[in-house]
Amino acid sequence: MTEPLPIGVLGLGRMGQIHAHHLASLPEARLVAVASRRPEAAQEIAALYDARPYAHYDDFFADREMRAVVIASATHEHVAHVKAAAAAGLAIFSEKPLALRLEDTDEALRAVDRAGVPLQVGFMRRFDPAFVEAKRRIEDGVIGRPLTFKAVSRDPQLPTAEAEESLVRGNLFIDLGVHDFDMARWLMGQEIRQVHAVGGALVYRRLAETGGVDNGLVSLVFADGSLAGVELSRNAAYGYDVRTEVLGSEGALIIGGLQQTPLSVLTRAGVTHDVFPWFPERFAEAYLAEIRHFVRCVRAGEFPSPDGRDDRAALQIALAATESLQTGKTVIITS
Amino acid sequence: MTEPLPIGVLGLGRMGQIHAHHLASLPEARLVAVASRRPEAAQEIAALYDARPYAHYDDFFADREMRAVVIASATHEHVAHVKAAAAAGLAIFSEKPLALRLEDTDEALRAVDRAGVPLQVGFMRRFDPAFVEAKRRIEDGVIGRPLTFKAVSRDPQLPTAEAEESLVRGNLFIDLGVHDFDMARWLMGQEIRQVHAVGGALVYRRLAETGGVDNGLVSLVFADGSLAGVELSRNAAYGYDVRTEVLGSEGALIIGGLQQTPLSVLTRAGVTHDVFPWFPERFAEAYLAEIRHFVRCVRAGEFPSPDGRDDRAALQIALAATESLQTGKTVIITS
Amino acid sequence: MTEPLPIGVLGLGRMGQIHAHHLASLPEARLVAVASRRPEAAQEIAALYDARPYAHYDDFFADREMRAVVIASATHEHVAHVKAAAAAGLAIFSEKPLALRLEDTDEALRAVDRAGVPLQVGFMRRFDPAFVEAKRRIEDGVIGRPLTFKAVSRDPQLPTAEAEESLVRGNLFIDLGVHDFDMARWLMGQEIRQVHAVGGALVYRRLAETGGVDNGLVSLVFADGSLAGVELSRNAAYGYDVRTEVLGSEGALIIGGLQQTPLSVLTRAGVTHDVFPWFPERFAEAYLAEIRHFVRCVRAGEFPSPDGRDDRAALQIALAATESLQTGKTVIITS
Amino acid sequence: MTEPLPIGVLGLGRMGQIHAHHLASLPEARLVAVASRRPEAAQEIAALYDARPYAHYDDFFADREMRAVVIASATHEHVAHVKAAAAAGLAIFSEKPLALRLEDTDEALRAVDRAGVPLQVGFMRRFDPAFVEAKRRIEDGVIGRPLTFKAVSRDPQLPTAEAEESLVRGNLFIDLGVHDFDMARWLMGQEIRQVHAVGGALVYRRLAETGGVDNGLVSLVFADGSLAGVELSRNAAYGYDVRTEVLGSEGALIIGGLQQTPLSVLTRAGVTHDVFPWFPERFAEAYLAEIRHFVRCVRAGEFPSPDGRDDRAALQIALAATESLQTGKTVIITS
Repeated sequence: MTEPLPIGVLGLGRMGQIHAHHLASLPEARLVAVASRRPEAAQEIAALYDARPYAHYDDFFADREMRAVVIASATHEHVAHVKAAAAAGLAIFSEKPLALRLEDTDEALRAVDRAGVPLQVGFMRRFDPAFVEAKRRIEDGVIGRPLTFKAVSRDPQLPTAEAEESLVRGNLFIDLGVHDFDMARWLMGQEIRQVHAVGGALVYRRLAETGGVDNGLVSLVFADGSLAGVELSRNAAYGYDVRTEVLGSEGALIIGGLQQTPLSVLTRAGVTHDVFPWFPERFAEAYLAEIRHFVRCVRAGEFPSPDGRDDRAALQIALAATESLQTGKTVIITS
Repeated sequence: MTEPLPIGVLGLGRMGQIHAHHLASLPEARLVAVASRRPEAAQEIAALYDARPYAHYDDFFADREMRAVVIASATHEHVAHVKAAAAAGLAIFSEKPLALRLEDTDEALRAVDRAGVPLQVGFMRRFDPAFVEAKRRIEDGVIGRPLTFKAVSRDPQLPTAEAEESLVRGNLFIDLGVHDFDMARWLMGQEIRQVHAVGGALVYRRLAETGGVDNGLVSLVFADGSLAGVELSRNAAYGYDVRTEVLGSEGALIIGGLQQTPLSVLTRAGVTHDVFPWFPERFAEAYLAEIRHFVRCVRAGEFPSPDGRDDRAALQIALAATESLQTGKTVIITS
Repeated sequence: MTEPLPIGVLGLGRMGQIHAHHLASLPEARLVAVASRRPEAAQEIAALYDARPYAHYDDFFADREMRAVVIASATHEHVAHVKAAAAAGLAIFSEKPLALRLEDTDEALRAVDRAGVPLQVGFMRRFDPAFVEAKRRIEDGVIGRPLTFKAVSRDPQLPTAEAEESLVRGNLFIDLGVHDFDMARWLMGQEIRQVHAVGGALVYRRLAETGGVDNGLVSLVFADGSLAGVELSRNAAYGYDVRTEVLGSEGALIIGGLQQTPLSVLTRAGVTHDVFPWFPERFAEAYLAEIRHFVRCVRAGEFPSPDGRDDRAALQIALAATESLQTGKTVIITS
Repeated sequence: MTEPLPIGVLGLGRMGQIHAHHLASLPEARLVAVASRRPEAAQEIAALYDARPYAHYDDFFADREMRAVVIASATHEHVAHVKAAAAAGLAIFSEKPLALRLEDTDEALRAVDRAGVPLQVGFMRRFDPAFVEAKRRIEDGVIGRPLTFKAVSRDPQLPTAEAEESLVRGNLFIDLGVHDFDMARWLMGQEIRQVHAVGGALVYRRLAETGGVDNGLVSLVFADGSLAGVELSRNAAYGYDVRTEVLGSEGALIIGGLQQTPLSVLTRAGVTHDVFPWFPERFAEAYLAEIRHFVRCVRAGEFPSPDGRDDRAALQIALAATESLQTGKTVIITS
C-alpha cells in the first residue's frame, strides 16, 4: 500500500485530540473523519485538520473512505465502539482499557477475532524511547536475568472538586496501574501469578465511601518466582512522576526521571529544576510513536502490538489488586 | 563532665574497627580498651590507638577505667554482652539487632532498665545528613502530611562462596530490612500495624533449602492507614544502593543517590559515574555522627536515641515479614 | 489569513530535509515546492510530502503558488538565494549564516529591506524550551543582573576523512560559534564590544595548514563591562555537548545537559547514561518551533525574530574572534 | 619512624583550626603546639586538643618537641614563618600562596632548599577524591590526549561590608585562581606559556578604585598548544561552586557538582537540592587527606608534593593574568 492510510478518530477529549493532531502530521496517514457527541467539537477539529466531522457514531462508522479508526471515547463505550469498528472491517486502535470487566473485554476480543481486523491498544509506554531502550538492553543481556520490577506512578493532584468526582468514579489500579502492570509483563517477559495490594483514601477522603483508594502498593509474583512492586498515587503535589526499575542478576535499569526542561535555576534556595506536569508532556514522543506503529502495521498488513490480549492481561492484574485490597488476601491469577 | 569519656570496643570485625577508629579521632572520647576473641587482632588495634587489648571478655568488662562500651560482637552474643555491660554499670552502644527473637531482646532490655544505664543502638541512618535533613523538612511541614514511605535497600553481590554461607545463616528482613523499618517508623512518626511480604531465592538458590530469600518486597500499613513499601535485595551487581522516599500531601522527599565520587567520565560508551561500593562508604559520616551522639549524651547524663525500644520495634516488623513470607498471609502487629 | 501558508524549501541536505519534514506536519503551512540541484533528491522528497520538485532554482523561485521560502542551500549560495527570494516577494527563512563576509551579509540585508519582505534566520536555540525558559527567568529578575555568560559547544568527532575536508573549508568560530554568540547577545541583552580568542589545531592537524583550529576559547566583553566565555570544539568523542550558563548578581542558570534518554544502566562499570549524538536530536523541538514561529509571523503579517541584524551581529563577533586568533590581539567591535 | 609525628600549627584562623582538628584526629600525628597572636585563641585550641599554647611565634618555633609545622598565618607572614621553620629544621606544610611576589617566593624557597627540609603547600584539590580519580583516568588514557582544561570557581557572596574589605585587599586571580591554575598544570601535565585575562568589578564596585575585579575570565595556552579557560567569580549568590573539565581526544571528564546533601525536595516549586555553602564543606576530605599525606611523607623521610615549585608556578600564572587584565595584552611566561 503506498497511499496514506485514511483514518478516523472517535472521541475528541484530551486523548482524541492528541491522536488527531499526530495523525494529521503523519505523511503516511490521512485524517479523514472525526466524531464527537459534541457537534461543535467535531466541527472545530475537522476544520483544523481538513477532515469530515460526525456527531453521530453510526454515521462515522459508515464513512466510506475510512479504513482505520482510533477509539478515544469514554471507557464504558469502548466495547460497543470496538464491536462497531470490527463489524465495519476497520483496523482498530483503542485507548486502554477496553473494558472494566473481563467478560466485556472478552466480548470485544471475540468481535475483533471474528472480523480478523488488527487491534492495537494504547499502552504508549511501550513506545517511549527510554522504555524501548530498556527492553533492548534486557534482551541484550546487559543486566543478566531480570529478577525484580519496580514502578512508581504518581498522578499530579487535581483541583479538588473535579478531581474527586473523577476519582470516585475511577479505580486507581485500573486507571493508573494498568500501565505499570503492562510494563511489568513486557519488560520481565513473564506472566504474573500472584497479586497482593494495600491502599488507602489518604487525601481524597470521599473515596472511602465507595471503597476507593488514592494511594496503593501492589506486590506481584511472576510465574517463575520473580517479583514486582508497584506504587500508585493520585496526589503528587509536585507533578507527574513515573519511574521504573528492573533489577537483574548482573545489573539494573532505571527508567525515567522527573526533569522536563534541562534548565537548573541556582538561587539562595538551592538548585531547582522543573517537573513534568502530566502525561502528555512526559510521553509526547510515545504517543506519536505508537500511532505511527499502528499506521505502519496496518499499511503493511501486519498485526500490531500491544494487542487485546495485553489489555486483558493488564486488566486482570488490576482486578486482582482490587480484590486483594477488599479482601486483604493474596489473589492467584490462574489465567 | 569535662574529661574525655573512657570507652571500650568489644568485637573487632568490620564494625568494631570502624567504631574504634572514630572513637580514637574524637577529642571528647578516649579509647581505653578493645576486646576480641582473636588476641592478635586485639593487640594490633590496641597498639594503633594506644588502648589496652583484651582477649577475654570477662577481663574486658572488668576494666577499671572504662565507663562506656561499644558492642560490636556477633549478633548472637549481643544479649550476653549487653547484660554483662549493664551489670558493670557501663553506658552501652550496641550494634543492631540486639537479638533475633523478641524474648531475647526483652531480656536485654530488662537488664538495661534494671541497671539504669543508657543504651543506644546502631541505626546509623538516623545520623546521615540526608536523612536528618529529610526528618527536619517533614517536621517543618514542607511535604504536608506524610502518606507513603518507600525504600530500596540493595546490598552488593558478594563473592559467591563466602556470601552464600553468610546469607544462608542470615535473614534478609532482619539483616538488611531493620534499617528501612526503623526509617519508616522514624520518618513517618507512626507505628506499623500490618505487614505483608513476598520474596524469593532468585540468585543464591541454596537459600531455598532453609526458606531464606535474597530478594523481598514488604508492604506495610501504619496505624493511621499510611503505607510503606520496602524492597530488599542481596544481589546488586553494581554496588550498594539505598534510596528512600516519603510522599506527602504537599510534596515529596527523595533521599540518597547512587554516585559516590563527583566525577563523570564521558566516552563513546556514554556518561558514566561510580556507585557506592558498600555501606561504610555511603554512611561514613553517619557512623561518626552516631558515636559522637552517644559520647555526648553519656557525658551530659542524657539518654541517647535510638534506644532498645526502637531496636525491638524494627525487629518485630522484620519477624512479621518473615512470618508473612512463610504463611502467605498478612500479619497484624498488636503490641 | 486563514489558509495554510504555501511554502517551499530550497536545498535538501540535512537541514532542508528537517525543515521539509516539519512544514509537512504543520496544519498551518503547506509544503508546495522543494528544490535541489540533485533532481532525484527533489523527486523523492516531493513525492514523500506531495509537493512539486524543482531541479533548477530559477524555476523554483518562479513557482506561482509559493508565498514563503526556507533557504537551506550551501552557505556560499545564501546571498544569491536571499536576493532571488526577495525579488520574488517571498517571505524568507534562511539558515545561518547569511554569508561569511559582512559586506555580503549587508548586500543580502539591503535586498530584503528594499523588498520589504520578512526575514528570519535559523538561530534555533532561541526556540529551545530550556533557552526560552532561561530568557524568561532572566527577564523575571530571578538571577538579578546578568554578569557573566558561559558556553560550551562541542561537536561530535566525525569519521576523519570526510570531517577534515569539511573542517578545512570551515571556520570554528563561524560554523559553531555563531550560535553561542547569538545566545550571549540574546540572554545578556547586550552588545559585545571586545573579543579575544585562542585556539589550536589539536586533533585535525591538517587544519594548521590553513590557519584553522578545531578547539578555541573566546573571551568577550559586553558594552557594560559584563563578560562572556565561549569554548568551542570539533572533537567531542562522546557526542554532542551544548551547555550554557548565565551568572547573575542574585543567582545563576545552567541550560542544557548531556543525557538524551532518561535511562540509567547500572552495571559493575558504574552508572551510565547516553549522550545526544548530534544537533538534530538535541534541538528537535527547537527546529519545529522556529519554523512554526516563522509561519505564524508570516501569516499574521508580523516580522519574525531573530532577523538579519542578529545574523550580522553574530557573524561580526565570529570574524573578530578569527582576527584575534590570527593576530594574538584583542579586537574591538565598533559598529 | 614508628612514633606519631609531633607537630604544631601556627595561625588559628579558619584554616589553622581545620588543620589542628585533623591533626588531633590522626593516630600517626600528635598535635603538640599551637600558636596565635591572640593568646585566648591559642589557649582554647590547646586545651581542646591537649597541646601547648604559644602567643609568641619565636617561642613556638623554639618548642623542643615539635618536628613539623603547619603554617596557616596571614599570607604576608608566610615567608617569614617559612624561613623561621626552615631555620629550626622543621618539616613545613604551608598554606598557599607562599607569597604575593615571585621574588618573595624565591626567598622562601631558597631558605627551604638550604635547610633541606620538606615543604608541602596547601593545594588541597590534589587530594580531593574526584580530582584524584580524574588524574588517574587521564594517566590511564581513558580520555586520550588531554586537549582543553576548563574550570569554574565561584566563591559565595559574603555580607557586603566585611567582604568588600577583604576583596579590596585581595586579588581574584591569586586568592581563588591559583587553585585552578594548579589543577590546570597537574591534570594536563603541562606548563602554561601564554595568559590572557579580562575581568570587571561587576558587583563590588569599590574594587574598581584599586583596579580589582570580582569576576574574571582567563584564557591560557600550554607549552604544546593545548588550551585552558578559567572562570572566577566572587559573587555566587547560591553558594560555593567549583567545577572542572578536561576534554581529551577520546573523551572528557567532568569533576565536581553542586549538590552537598543527597536529598531532593519535590514541591509545587519543582525539585530542589542544596548547594555546598563554602570550601570547608566541599573539600572536607581533601583537607584531611593532604595533611595525612604530609605526615606520612615526613615520617617516611620522603619529600611531599605539591611543593614550593608548584606554588611558584601557580602564582606566576596569577600574576600574568593580573598583568594582562591591566594592560589588555597577552602575557608570555618564559621561565
